[in-house]
Amino acid sequence: MSEKFAAVEIISAKRDKHELSNEQIDWTIDAYTRGVIADEQMSALLMAILLNGMNNREISKWTEAMIASGEKMNWSMLDRPTVDKHSTGGVGDKITLPLAPLVAACGAAVPQLSGRGLGHTGGTLDKLESIKGWKANLSNAEMLKVIQECGAVICAAGAGLAPADKKLYALRDVTGTVQAIPLIASSIMSKKIAEGTSALVLDVKTGSGAFMSDPKDAALLARTMVDLGKNAGVKTRALVTAMDVPLGLTAGNALEIRETLEVLAGGGPSDVIELTLLLANEMLDAVGIKPKVSPEEALKNGMAMDVWRKMITAQGGDNDAPLPVAKEKMEIKATASGKLLNLDAMKVGVAAWRLGAGRQKQGEVLQLGSGIEIHAKPGDLVTKDQAILTLHTDEVARFERAIDALVGGFSIGGKDDEVKRLPLVVERIEG
Amino acid sequence: MSEKFAAVEIISAKRDKHELSNEQIDWTIDAYTRGVIADEQMSALLMAILLNGMNNREISKWTEAMIASGEKMNWSMLDRPTVDKHSTGGVGDKITLPLAPLVAACGAAVPQLSGRGLGHTGGTLDKLESIKGWKANLSNAEMLKVIQECGAVICAAGAGLAPADKKLYALRDVTGTVQAIPLIASSIMSKKIAEGTSALVLDVKTGSGAFMSDPKDAALLARTMVDLGKNAGVKTRALVTAMDVPLGLTAGNALEIRETLEVLAGGGPSDVIELTLLLANEMLDAVGIKPKVSPEEALKNGMAMDVWRKMITAQGGDNDAPLPVAKEKMEIKATASGKLLNLDAMKVGVAAWRLGAGRQKQGEVLQLGSGIEIHAKPGDLVTKDQAILTLHTDEVARFERAIDALVGGFSIGGKDDEVKRLPLVVERIEG
Repeated sequence: MSEKFAAVEIISAKRDKHELSNEQIDWTIDAYTRGVIADEQMSALLMAILLNGMNNREISKWTEAMIASGEKMNWSMLDRPTVDKHSTGGVGDKITLPLAPLVAACGAAVPQLSGRGLGHTGGTLDKLESIKGWKANLSNAEMLKVIQECGAVICAAGAGLAPADKKLYALRDVTGTVQAIPLIASSIMSKKIAEGTSALVLDVKTGSGAFMSDPKDAALLARTMVDLGKNAGVKTRALVTAMDVPLGLTAGNALEIRETLEVLAGGGPSDVIELTLLLANEMLDAVGIKPKVSPEEALKNGMAMDVWRKMITAQGGDNDAPLPVAKEKMEIKATASGKLLNLDAMKVGVAAWRLGAGRQKQGEVLQLGSGIEIHAKPGDLVTKDQAILTLHTDEVARFERAIDALVGGFSIGGKDDEVKRLPLVVERIEG
Repeated sequence: MSEKFAAVEIISAKRDKHELSNEQIDWTIDAYTRGVIADEQMSALLMAILLNGMNNREISKWTEAMIASGEKMNWSMLDRPTVDKHSTGGVGDKITLPLAPLVAACGAAVPQLSGRGLGHTGGTLDKLESIKGWKANLSNAEMLKVIQECGAVICAAGAGLAPADKKLYALRDVTGTVQAIPLIASSIMSKKIAEGTSALVLDVKTGSGAFMSDPKDAALLARTMVDLGKNAGVKTRALVTAMDVPLGLTAGNALEIRETLEVLAGGGPSDVIELTLLLANEMLDAVGIKPKVSPEEALKNGMAMDVWRKMITAQGGDNDAPLPVAKEKMEIKATASGKLLNLDAMKVGVAAWRLGAGRQKQGEVLQLGSGIEIHAKPGDLVTKDQAILTLHTDEVARFERAIDALVGGFSIGGKDDEVKRLPLVVERIEG
């Protein structure tokens, strides 16, 4: 009956730029989970946090309280160390797909609990659902079985993991309070810590196609998350990586699976291969594994592909079924010959989203074949009328809105013009 | 079906310190009234407004949109000009009660639409309900009849007046977003402008017992409201007045009615008389009335009392019924002889509230006889064991919590010690 604090008192404290005590934070998360703090009270508090900030102790306690709201997983029965990777999301970012089986092939266990896409960035689970029969939702026992058999599992995070975060995330989405570093960091890390991994490598995206377009903000978010992981006993490191240009040559669910298969077959676009190998080496290093076969070799010799096929099969997927293909195609052509100077990740992401690859509301059904193929990247020489992009969708009517989104999305200059791009790795942060 | 804007877009704009356009503000108030903007979205916006502010154009538009959400009253059928007074609320502030009949006695029409108390400040309607039979809720026709017969009416604002403000006020109360000057100013002024008065005198309280304890904040609020009134064609002026010490010698509903009757009988405490006369002269001046009988005289010769009794009778009240008296009394005595140096308005207000004079939640039933009598004011010489305060309540158990609230509430010094008080009128602001 009697509550330790009152919601208005907590909101007013943060509104007036005071620190919240550990007791206040514990109570806030617990009372919100129990429904004692109403949504309209929490959203006012979230806006005050967004505008007035939280210090490291507050962020750490907020994260702990969210972890304590649910179950904590345990992988101590496995015969090898667990390591996970998390990306803050970007356009064409399919890295998790080749990376998880690759790292498993090199000797670590990879419990990759993933989410769905919302907005212009895709979701790993959505991409995998392009594979006939593949199921994202596993019980804890099924999850354990897949990881024991295959070394890796990519599946949906269970509802028992940080339920306070789930409730908060849905609220932030409709109240303009997504973009706060304390809230983003605690949301990601509460799930990753509750997931029970022993080590974690974060891929924090920056550039036009990332939530944190400014590299300074991305680095601050990365540092905040690395500290949260370290305090919770998870070996955590982060790479801040480029998302000014889409990763690879595809954006869209089945299109990205196709590209993943190329990478696992020893081919694929160089940026996808490079980032996959960088992250694989970080993950293996984080758990102290010096692999007998290098990640580079494991991609080339088919070991990673073997783990992938086993993992897909273990989750009901048919490796040999054809992938969905969109009904309609349209090419976007170069208007002149010269050098492609840029290709804006956000604009490509929004166009793919509008073609049917992404959802506007939770629960929306995707067009799994829709998306964009990229035929030239910045720095490439192109000739007039050459296709730069191919748009894929099931509904012709979607082309117009996608083309609107692409206005100013790329430009062609002289062949000696300089291309301004972020380096693939902008910064590396270790705890 | 299709909305002009999206709630998240409006919230994000104010979160990022942008101005809201007139179209955005109109849509926001309308969409919130229609339920298209949810409470959790509005509270995030309110917190962003509180922390990032609104400029004068935004405040003015926000106020207009709240007025447009409901009906607007019209007093053009009256044969004399209307003038109203609004106080931001303080401890022992019963000024409206003698003031409305006094100004009516001097020739103006006073449509005094009032509210109920919440927290440590009392509400005019609650005080009047100490009078047997008196009713606060009148139809528009009844209201008109009382003002035509008596020259003044004090009653509850109808539900048709600025309904958006009612919904917003309830939300602000539970989300820590009461204390924002743009929101306070627009809330007060939307009701006052919709009420249709031709002139308005604002009494903006400052000092420990006021919502705006800092005189600078109080002056800014006063200036904001005067500008809003002026823009809406209402002759508006404001006095920023002292609320560091309770007004008069009583705080509590029936106790304040008793003091009001003393003032209307030509007696009463000097500060209550002084402020009543100051405000009466401002109100009469605002509508250009040079009264034949001065307000000072009208208090002394019983003219104001006659209007009061007529007005109470017209609203069903029995002028001759005994007022409620609390069951229990306790004296708080001077611990030494000397000069009373201060008497903290907030502490006396909270103590009176805890004795049963105020409510913690909307709709709570009050103890109409409860409250505090004050026997000495700062500057007065007191002798050891003399009663400084008398506490009144219906429940003995309430004394302890009231005494807790009074700790440090007054101090006694040497008879030559200086008393630091705010002047009764801190600032006068005219449009």
